[in-house]
Amino acid sequence: MVIPGPLSSAVIIAVGSELLTPDHIDTNSLFLTRELNQLGIIVRYKTVVRDDSNDLVLALQIAMQQTGLVIVTGGLGATSDDITRPALASAFGLSLHENASVASVIQERFNIRGIEMPEINLRQALIPEGADVLFNSCGTAPGFSIEKNKVLCVALPGPPRELRPMFQKFSKNHLVSRSGERRTFRRVIVVAGRSESDVETAVQSIYVRWLDSSQPVFTSVLASSGKVELHLSTIGANAKESEQVLTTAVAAIAEVLGESLVSTDGSPIEVVVGRLLKDRGVYLAVAESCTGGLTSSRLTDVAGSSGYLHSGWVVYSDEAKVKTLGIDYQLIKAHGAVSKEVAEAMAMSARELADVQYALGITGIAGPAGGSAEKPVGTVWIALVGPHSLRRTRLLRLSGERADIKYQASQAALDLLRRVLLQCA
Amino acid sequence: MVIPGPLSSAVIIAVGSELLTPDHIDTNSLFLTRELNQLGIIVRYKTVVRDDSNDLVLALQIAMQQTGLVIVTGGLGATSDDITRPALASAFGLSLHENASVASVIQERFNIRGIEMPEINLRQALIPEGADVLFNSCGTAPGFSIEKNKVLCVALPGPPRELRPMFQKFSKNHLVSRSGERRTFRRVIVVAGRSESDVETAVQSIYVRWLDSSQPVFTSVLASSGKVELHLSTIGANAKESEQVLTTAVAAIAEVLGESLVSTDGSPIEVVVGRLLKDRGVYLAVAESCTGGLTSSRLTDVAGSSGYLHSGWVVYSDEAKVKTLGIDYQLIKAHGAVSKEVAEAMAMSARELADVQYALGITGIAGPAGGSAEKPVGTVWIALVGPHSLRRTRLLRLSGERADIKYQASQAALDLLRRVLLQCA
Repeated sequence: MVIPGPLSSAVIIAVGSELLTPDHIDTNSLFLTRELNQLGIIVRYKTVVRDDSNDLVLALQIAMQQTGLVIVTGGLGATSDDITRPALASAFGLSLHENASVASVIQERFNIRGIEMPEINLRQALIPEGADVLFNSCGTAPGFSIEKNKVLCVALPGPPRELRPMFQKFSKNHLVSRSGERRTFRRVIVVAGRSESDVETAVQSIYVRWLDSSQPVFTSVLASSGKVELHLSTIGANAKESEQVLTTAVAAIAEVLGESLVSTDGSPIEVVVGRLLKDRGVYLAVAESCTGGLTSSRLTDVAGSSGYLHSGWVVYSDEAKVKTLGIDYQLIKAHGAVSKEVAEAMAMSARELADVQYALGITGIAGPAGGSAEKPVGTVWIALVGPHSLRRTRLLRLSGERADIKYQASQAALDLLRRVLLQCA
Repeated sequence: MVIPGPLSSAVIIAVGSELLTPDHIDTNSLFLTRELNQLGIIVRYKTVVRDDSNDLVLALQIAMQQTGLVIVTGGLGATSDDITRPALASAFGLSLHENASVASVIQERFNIRGIEMPEINLRQALIPEGADVLFNSCGTAPGFSIEKNKVLCVALPGPPRELRPMFQKFSKNHLVSRSGERRTFRRVIVVAGRSESDVETAVQSIYVRWLDSSQPVFTSVLASSGKVELHLSTIGANAKESEQVLTTAVAAIAEVLGESLVSTDGSPIEVVVGRLLKDRGVYLAVAESCTGGLTSSRLTDVAGSSGYLHSGWVVYSDEAKVKTLGIDYQLIKAHGAVSKEVAEAMAMSARELADVQYALGITGIAGPAGGSAEKPVGTVWIALVGPHSLRRTRLLRLSGERADIKYQASQAALDLLRRVLLQCA
């Protein structure tokens, strides 16, 4: 049976009691959503159900009334918990049959290992009648797809590395040909040095207008400690036109954001700073106290960073600052370890020891202890020194957990460097 | 109306089209699940619906047939997307009324800022008749709870920092008194130096038995790059007995894991290593190449780490190794930067420069470029030097993305140190 008209929406059902505990989250649905959106198919809703046949049958029946495409993940193992096969057969009114080719593939896996196959494993060969088998090259549980009563349903195993290639193959064979011509196109704008609400206020009046245009652009602002991103998407049948719509939209946002704009291709600040250093042929050294190596670690998350990051120092105690970086102890005594003077001295020492063009110094109170009335937890000084006696310092007053403060401080240091490098093109 | 019998299960419905994109995930449900489990209430299923009134009403109607407790998150803002108020009123057959105290709270927020309130904001004061208002001390959107036809339903705003305190207050007032006597008790065992499948194989025969005991213990193995955890939980009415059941279970697992056991209270390895260093009154220095400061950064994620981490060096290039740490360039030339000899020399230099008891040296190829047939991407040497001429080195052959390799290398270095410190109690 062929579904009339293009598929426009899907429902995702994840099966597994472990996905209803406080520790597990269904991440497969994010992958599936991205893949579906690329075909112009939106996710209508998604549900996580426990390993209970009645619950899954009910969820399937509801989904089949709502959409033409139902994707079920998990519950395809060999134990009695694994209820997806019988529940799907029941929801579609089909019987289960042992599929001979699946059974022989399973049998062969055991033969190769010279192990006798436990009878229980043949459960995985039970497939609803008329279903198409999706073989699993990364695990034992096969998937399958069923098409009946104008509904296409696919069942995939839960482990992401098994699910992903299987879905992509299914998509190529069953979805691409009958998805509509419309696709989702996306851009990710990365912002630094502005809060989420500040960005929201600055751009809201712009993106609200796009909702009423002939090809609407949808915008969402995502934020997590010190990191703000704008995600723009549009759905269109013409790739060139859709990309042009997004390019115009990105340009309008870029104009408002000015130097706060880090990238329009989703690149994080450590990648952008790396590019700027490399383009200018200069090297960086980093001296970190409260961030404890996080800034260096983020810079070295980028392949090729040895081409611009020379050295890093983690000088957490006063003694380390004096002994390792050669900071004058009198300076620490006079101004405190968290001070403009010490941040600058750290950067200058690092620049001199590494003999490079630029150096950052970061010193602060990450908490939860160590704060005072004058210098509360979250007080951070960052300093950047560079050629031609360049000296920049900034005082930050951050809030949040220890890890948030570390991250925000490293973010601010990288952003200070980025803005300075932008100006000396 | 009072719900007869204790609440035993709940359904969570998250509202928001943005939660159906590839970038957003509903994390509120993890918090809610943890809170509910502590009251002995399990999550029956959870659903994410878009900003569509019909879809939400349908989801509510289904949930109300399945359980006595429905938790709705999101969709309580002031824009027309925010559909939770009318949908809930409709699902319960109630009308919406402007709540005078909510309206005056909203009005006052604008008065304080000296801004005229846009009429649209009064939408947030519309509450289903008979509902209990939950005031929001961190934002403008109030929540509310409704009880009708043996169903208790609570609506909470989407932002986690608003939702969390509001749910806790609601829970104290409405759930604690009518949850059953049974509670969920949990333990988290952290493991290092063994793969997920290795741990699974070692402990499976033990934890499978617990499922048939009078008070079953549920076990799940969680793994992500180089980190393996066992989560044990049991549901019981008697706290002392339940804790004893878990203590016995943890002891059985601990015996099998031996020195691979990092902690039984969920403490990550950086916390455990910190405790061991502190207890022994010794200091550590770290010299990192491929991990780029990640090991220092993880150690300094722990408050009080200045009490045992002296200094860290990030020496990414050969030049930095020579200039900053004083490694003999001939050694690098003879053995390569990724070698046992250079890892040891890095650790020895760090120990000497910082004048401390212990030092780690880490050098490797994080990829994706830089590998060779002899030393492929993922080749990492770690070295630990300590008092009494202690020298330990390990060769790692890691796989994964660049960030995974960095993490696993830092994990292995911390684990080497942990095992050595355990033996010199």
